[in-house]
Amino acid sequence: MYTHSLSASVCVCVNVINAYFFPLGCRYVSKTATKTQVEFDYNGPSMKTSVPGPRSQELTKQLGDIQNVGAVNFFCNYEESRGNYLVDVDGNRMLDLYTQISSIPIGYNHPALLKLMTNPNNLSTFVNRPALGILPPENFPDKLTESLLSVAPSGMTRVQTMACGSCSNENAFKSMFIWYKVSEKTFKLCLLLPGCPDLSILSFMGSFHGRTMGCLATTHSKAIHKLDVPTFDWPIAPFPRLQYPLEEFSRENAQEESRCLEEVEDLIVKWRQKGKPVAGIVVEPIQAEGGDNHASPDFFRSLRNICRKHGCAFHVDEVQTGGGTTGKFWAHEHWGVDDPADIVSFSKKLLTGGYFQKDELQPDKAYRIFNTWMGDPAKNLFLAEVLNVIRRENLLEEVTRSGKALLNGLYELQAQYSGILSRARGQGTFCAIDICDDETRNRILLKTRDKGVILGGCGDRSIRFRPALIFKEYHAHIFLNIFNDVLAQLK
Amino acid sequence: MYTHSLSASVCVCVNVINAYFFPLGCRYVSKTATKTQVEFDYNGPSMKTSVPGPRSQELTKQLGDIQNVGAVNFFCNYEESRGNYLVDVDGNRMLDLYTQISSIPIGYNHPALLKLMTNPNNLSTFVNRPALGILPPENFPDKLTESLLSVAPSGMTRVQTMACGSCSNENAFKSMFIWYKVSEKTFKLCLLLPGCPDLSILSFMGSFHGRTMGCLATTHSKAIHKLDVPTFDWPIAPFPRLQYPLEEFSRENAQEESRCLEEVEDLIVKWRQKGKPVAGIVVEPIQAEGGDNHASPDFFRSLRNICRKHGCAFHVDEVQTGGGTTGKFWAHEHWGVDDPADIVSFSKKLLTGGYFQKDELQPDKAYRIFNTWMGDPAKNLFLAEVLNVIRRENLLEEVTRSGKALLNGLYELQAQYSGILSRARGQGTFCAIDICDDETRNRILLKTRDKGVILGGCGDRSIRFRPALIFKEYHAHIFLNIFNDVLAQLK
Repeated sequence: MYTHSLSASVCVCVNVINAYFFPLGCRYVSKTATKTQVEFDYNGPSMKTSVPGPRSQELTKQLGDIQNVGAVNFFCNYEESRGNYLVDVDGNRMLDLYTQISSIPIGYNHPALLKLMTNPNNLSTFVNRPALGILPPENFPDKLTESLLSVAPSGMTRVQTMACGSCSNENAFKSMFIWYKVSEKTFKLCLLLPGCPDLSILSFMGSFHGRTMGCLATTHSKAIHKLDVPTFDWPIAPFPRLQYPLEEFSRENAQEESRCLEEVEDLIVKWRQKGKPVAGIVVEPIQAEGGDNHASPDFFRSLRNICRKHGCAFHVDEVQTGGGTTGKFWAHEHWGVDDPADIVSFSKKLLTGGYFQKDELQPDKAYRIFNTWMGDPAKNLFLAEVLNVIRRENLLEEVTRSGKALLNGLYELQAQYSGILSRARGQGTFCAIDICDDETRNRILLKTRDKGVILGGCGDRSIRFRPALIFKEYHAHIFLNIFNDVLAQLK
Repeated sequence: MYTHSLSASVCVCVNVINAYFFPLGCRYVSKTATKTQVEFDYNGPSMKTSVPGPRSQELTKQLGDIQNVGAVNFFCNYEESRGNYLVDVDGNRMLDLYTQISSIPIGYNHPALLKLMTNPNNLSTFVNRPALGILPPENFPDKLTESLLSVAPSGMTRVQTMACGSCSNENAFKSMFIWYKVSEKTFKLCLLLPGCPDLSILSFMGSFHGRTMGCLATTHSKAIHKLDVPTFDWPIAPFPRLQYPLEEFSRENAQEESRCLEEVEDLIVKWRQKGKPVAGIVVEPIQAEGGDNHASPDFFRSLRNICRKHGCAFHVDEVQTGGGTTGKFWAHEHWGVDDPADIVSFSKKLLTGGYFQKDELQPDKAYRIFNTWMGDPAKNLFLAEVLNVIRRENLLEEVTRSGKALLNGLYELQAQYSGILSRARGQGTFCAIDICDDETRNRILLKTRDKGVILGGCGDRSIRFRPALIFKEYHAHIFLNIFNDVLAQLK
């Protein structure tokens, strides 16, 4: 009954991709792609209209009567989408290097996830969403153990699920406030309302931690996110602005990082003097929305030490970097430390939101961190299966391999189109490149999409690459060839 | 393949409930229950251990190594739960009048929802969660139209989905701030950060609007929710403290409401003078978490007019009251006005979070109200089916009928146990009663649970009743009999 009829339209072997869809284009490389291991994937993009096509435009108009549709790119046919390919309602099939803002872990319609849906034992989990904080299902401890705890960051044995990334960060912040007060590190009483002290969270310029009002006070990637919304008076430190490739500018970058770290310490002291002590520092291992800004393992280790020195909690926000896309399950694993953080939050590719925390960060009393649903066991089911697939198919190694192909290709294109491209950078497939200006960046995004590749922007003028974990070397080559064509036509 | 083997353990006819499980108890009434129309329901509670039983205790210990379990009541067997009955891991079967903090609309394992899961056309919706704001699925406008828009509050044609209640209120607040600024009703510039003005939201003592930091600034039901978390300096008005039954105290109650409304206007003026103008007022039609506090339709109509007069938006939070439980789909329908609000937020029984808004409240630009997921189409699927069931089975009428039976029973018990019970009140099945003190209330909750009925507390010393929409008159009688037994033993 549940055999979905995908196989007919799926081609397993892709040997001559180059000659396939852009026979007249200026080719980036003559590499032939290796045999695909993604059996439910398509064999390449296939474009029928420019995007958005007529059907997408019609639906956008329809939805416009219900919602603001200014951000809608196009409408999708998720039933026909497979693996690395997103199919739209006009029959266009695009290689997806953006994956729903980096939130699809193992591609569209993965057979393992479809199979999970057909298991009658799982039905009840979908139709009876519990209030997890008061009435958890029997298998909840086991499911947490086999899924989230099996990928717990070093030093953390406790995890709290939440519905989305913003809720995860909001509650992580609250945990830090509670911990700070319970630790009695401050004796100042609240001036505003008894019991609601003027504590603060230190964040970085260019960071993105969500858009609910606590998160938004720590988000500084784009002005439009914050405009007209009241905020807290919390300290904002500069984030290092590094020069790439990192290894060629190690001295300059180390200086830049020192400057930022000094500023962090100054702000902690200043805000303590202001009567708004810093309960915690929140940081992304790679600033994503803010423009894929990297910092060295040394920077993060020093930040961790500053937190220890000043009695602040250290919160690493892995909502976008977590889940394997940097070649390790957590981006902070690249720092090589045993005690990377006090709290690590996640969402997106993990399908459920939530955060890991150290024992001492757990609130002292019930109902201090609480809401109706506290996550969703149906998402935990999918996550457990995603983790199985990651292990079974060694996807972290694959990401490292395809990430190298992607980044090397970007280096080559950057050399070739030095007037347009600069600052190619990345870890695993979590890569980015800068375009000469905002307007050209946006033009490139649209042209590339019309040739069958979906990319996303970030920062002022960067393009970010966020493929699924099943993205292989030959997918990198498909993209690089198309990207080269677009750049050649721009020149 | 998907025929679940429920029928064996389910009894359709319940004629002699009274004599069934408490043959020795002191009976409240001798009413025999009418034939059940809930075909997938059990025929009554069945208790094997006190709650939590040994298996629940063991699992609580296990989960305690992962999370704070101070709020866990017991562990559930959701596979075996049916209709109005929640089954725990020790084999206890309880009549559920709390329904996962009022979030299960049509009972456990409703056949219509199970059937939806077995439809192969729906699989893709579950396994490919889209970024709805940029890449919606083809059927998204139609699904919104046939589900949420079919129950849109009067005067509202626009709806935005969100993942949960807190996110819904956070984004509703942001919409009001944006609307307020865009309407250029204020000329004050932000003192703190350019672009982030000192606007405020007026809320009421005793209200609950969620626990993320924007919502939390408007939540004042219990101190533990707010302790140690920084907040905004926003105005808080008194909510009427009415005397029940309402019809007996109409003069006193009208005076009390006038007092509160005057205070609302005073606060609006005061906060404008402070340079923190009130962009919106948020209110629950019945304060739920805060103790089931009612106010008259007149009160809400006056509040609406105050908003118009002072240029504030009016936000009605129907997260707990919405979805049919008061006998109308929205509690604000009891006010009898055509233009009840500018924003109405929802979650819980609607399975997806979100809010309706008037045209002018929609943000002027894209990405101002935005996050990765913007809701979840899988939840919309369930909601559409829930709405079908509500209509097909006339559940709003049923709620009105069973709500009357419940409230009349509470009145009778209140007369009988006047030293313990007071202030019985309610609309539909959204009922509550006060207990003489907090400690007795908590003891009653536990004793009632051990006899097979799940209830929830609210406020300082209230019990709230939040059954599913499939709760019938005879379920009310089952509960009332058990409640009577508990009260008789307390006396």
